[in-house]
Amino acid sequence: MNRTDDYIDKNKDRFLEELMLFLEIHSVSADKKSEAALTRCAKYVKDLLRKAGCDKTELYSTSGWPLVFGEKIIDTNKPTVLVYGHYDVQPAAPLSLWESEPFNPVIRNGKIFARGASDDKGQIFIQIKALEAMIKTDNLPCNVKFIIEGEEETGSQSLLDFLENNSEKLSADVVLVSDTAMISLDCPSIETALRGMVYMQVAITGPDRDLHSGVYGGAVANPVNILCEMISSLHDANNRITIPGFYDQVISIPEKERAKINQAPFSLEAYKKELGISEVNGEKGYTTLERVGIRPSLDVNGIWGGYTGEGAKTVLPSKAFAKISIRTVPDQHSMEIATLFSTHLKKIAPPSVHVKVDFIHGGEAAITPTDSKGYRAAAKAVKHTFGKDPLAIYSGGSIPIVPAFKKILGIDTVLLGFGLDNDNIHSPNEKMDLANFYKGIHTIPYFYQYFAD
Amino acid sequence: MNRTDDYIDKNKDRFLEELMLFLEIHSVSADKKSEAALTRCAKYVKDLLRKAGCDKTELYSTSGWPLVFGEKIIDTNKPTVLVYGHYDVQPAAPLSLWESEPFNPVIRNGKIFARGASDDKGQIFIQIKALEAMIKTDNLPCNVKFIIEGEEETGSQSLLDFLENNSEKLSADVVLVSDTAMISLDCPSIETALRGMVYMQVAITGPDRDLHSGVYGGAVANPVNILCEMISSLHDANNRITIPGFYDQVISIPEKERAKINQAPFSLEAYKKELGISEVNGEKGYTTLERVGIRPSLDVNGIWGGYTGEGAKTVLPSKAFAKISIRTVPDQHSMEIATLFSTHLKKIAPPSVHVKVDFIHGGEAAITPTDSKGYRAAAKAVKHTFGKDPLAIYSGGSIPIVPAFKKILGIDTVLLGFGLDNDNIHSPNEKMDLANFYKGIHTIPYFYQYFAD
Repeated sequence: MNRTDDYIDKNKDRFLEELMLFLEIHSVSADKKSEAALTRCAKYVKDLLRKAGCDKTELYSTSGWPLVFGEKIIDTNKPTVLVYGHYDVQPAAPLSLWESEPFNPVIRNGKIFARGASDDKGQIFIQIKALEAMIKTDNLPCNVKFIIEGEEETGSQSLLDFLENNSEKLSADVVLVSDTAMISLDCPSIETALRGMVYMQVAITGPDRDLHSGVYGGAVANPVNILCEMISSLHDANNRITIPGFYDQVISIPEKERAKINQAPFSLEAYKKELGISEVNGEKGYTTLERVGIRPSLDVNGIWGGYTGEGAKTVLPSKAFAKISIRTVPDQHSMEIATLFSTHLKKIAPPSVHVKVDFIHGGEAAITPTDSKGYRAAAKAVKHTFGKDPLAIYSGGSIPIVPAFKKILGIDTVLLGFGLDNDNIHSPNEKMDLANFYKGIHTIPYFYQYFAD
Repeated sequence: MNRTDDYIDKNKDRFLEELMLFLEIHSVSADKKSEAALTRCAKYVKDLLRKAGCDKTELYSTSGWPLVFGEKIIDTNKPTVLVYGHYDVQPAAPLSLWESEPFNPVIRNGKIFARGASDDKGQIFIQIKALEAMIKTDNLPCNVKFIIEGEEETGSQSLLDFLENNSEKLSADVVLVSDTAMISLDCPSIETALRGMVYMQVAITGPDRDLHSGVYGGAVANPVNILCEMISSLHDANNRITIPGFYDQVISIPEKERAKINQAPFSLEAYKKELGISEVNGEKGYTTLERVGIRPSLDVNGIWGGYTGEGAKTVLPSKAFAKISIRTVPDQHSMEIATLFSTHLKKIAPPSVHVKVDFIHGGEAAITPTDSKGYRAAAKAVKHTFGKDPLAIYSGGSIPIVPAFKKILGIDTVLLGFGLDNDNIHSPNEKMDLANFYKGIHTIPYFYQYFAD
């Protein structure tokens, strides 16, 4: 293994240069105007896989953005690792809050700042460079397949369709994903659970045009006020979600498991300070770690309606909109929750407005058993590189495809992520610490080694 | 008077041409980028007054947009009419809902469509052309002063300051304003009351940056959800405003007066149909005409926060904003209401967020006594031109400067407006009916005649 570690150390600077080019590509999957960039990005990933030493690399057109496939089969009797990741990124808005341009990566204080630095371009790059190092130093102990998609941030629909029709092509013994974060360099951790998600858009229509708020105000229902009332009614005083039937499928977590969750190092004071808030806020009866790990949540991700420009416009708006997402937990089913949500919103709307609910995307919650072969190999690899046993932790995030790997391909996923909790993913000034980046590249070959043993 | 009527008929087409040029000027007072257009527009008004035959025309720079003054003094023993209007317009957004461009006036079905066609460029144009017709046909029976401002849509601060320092210059016996609407050509009406206004902007800040809604959702207060809760709590189940002390100064309207208000021709079915709504919505215990005429109201004029682009972004936003305006009625005072609002919002905000309330502008409610000389002259003039006694009605709108004319100059205002209720003022596809436009020009000289008698 020393040869592989040496190869990584010798090629550090080149890796970083190639990563920066990767981060420059505007692969925002939510933005149809980024079509050319997304295709360019998929080709760049394919090329990286080819240069890393894959025998076969393929690009698949879909009804959305292209899928990239690569493989290196060394011996069909050996185990196969399927690496999953995504080259698409979240929109960069609000641009004014970025200290440097989101698609012009810069290094400051040992961190690389760019949209996608941690989620997930930087992390699939770790996987690809680890593969390159293993192949170039004749040290690859397993067969490897890569499936990299461009729609993770918008629900993974194309990959879901692909999975259904290509289960043989993607057959493997474990799915390896680097798309999550650890607590810190000093406190390495591996996520073992992901929340699911349902993302919806709500449109409220009142009068058929914007009205003068003086002439009509007080007599005609204002769709923004109504939308606020409806959103407000979705939580009760204990911050529980009020949609009928919402909690019916939520599994109850035994006290012992809850105690384990709360053993993770966590300082509420440090958490509040880091976020600039005076108080946390969540479901009564649960700690912050429980609230994001094992409990569902409902957030408005965006709201708009009426006049939002400079100064004053005295308008009673015709329409109001909100993007609302729900994080689900086992055994909630995203489509069922979407239906409950939509039915409830239509039920509580007053007759003075019209409500439309569009389902945008959804995905299920997932759990990795800590006694699986994959998890044990990952924990051992992290211990080797970071010098400590990793903590098994629950994450609040969602990776829509992970439950489908289990359901459709029958394969467990290991979430071997090298981000940090403060990477600002989905936020301005997303970054990845270079120390974690290089440690990640060093860790992966050990995972392969231990998994092949 | 026949000479004057003839002059108007002979110059119809030229008047329309000059109006269209006026409507082309992008005089949006809320938009600082329109600075050049606002100055251009003020100069255009000054030029119209000069060409109409004013002896003196002046432009005053202010800390906001220029004021235009003009006068024609024929005999200091005769009464003086002070005409007030505004050359600024509301923003045109949302542009996509306009059938033709807002600043490219077009005539369709006997109506002229453009931002400002009715509010208020078309109506001050009526006043100026009536003056021109009277002067050119030697038929002006009073002294006339014009004060035309560029900040009506943003609170009239510069004109308020000007009033304080120029009461002599603006001294007059009546203020004549064409900036309101009548019920219809068949049912002429004159507004006798205006609601006041307070316009505020609310900013809610939660975490100091946008967060990943999966990683933090359920544990950190979402400023959009909080803003919705706060807005929702501002009305109770009877649609009364819940701000403590809000109704303390509202004068109670006697049953007799309420009965009179409800005698105005009004079809709830036609009203709902025209607005495309199934139900009206307002304060319990009041009719629609009462709700907009004599009762205060609170509307969100705009709301925004988080991701509002295409598709999905799973963000827990750092900030949420709303523009909220309150329509006040006698004897509420705008600054007192602004303070009650701001104090209340800060009080109800949970400790997990920070609240900022900015006062944008305000103005007081106003009433024109129907037994005043000005009102009686206006009613007689309307009867002459429209063939029917006008109804005295209450309006829900606000003209911030009107109460100041009374308070500072001691002059009553007559609201002799020639718009129609369906002119889409402040909305896309604002228009003015040409029939009303010309009838307005014919009506004004009769007002002067009857007022001078």
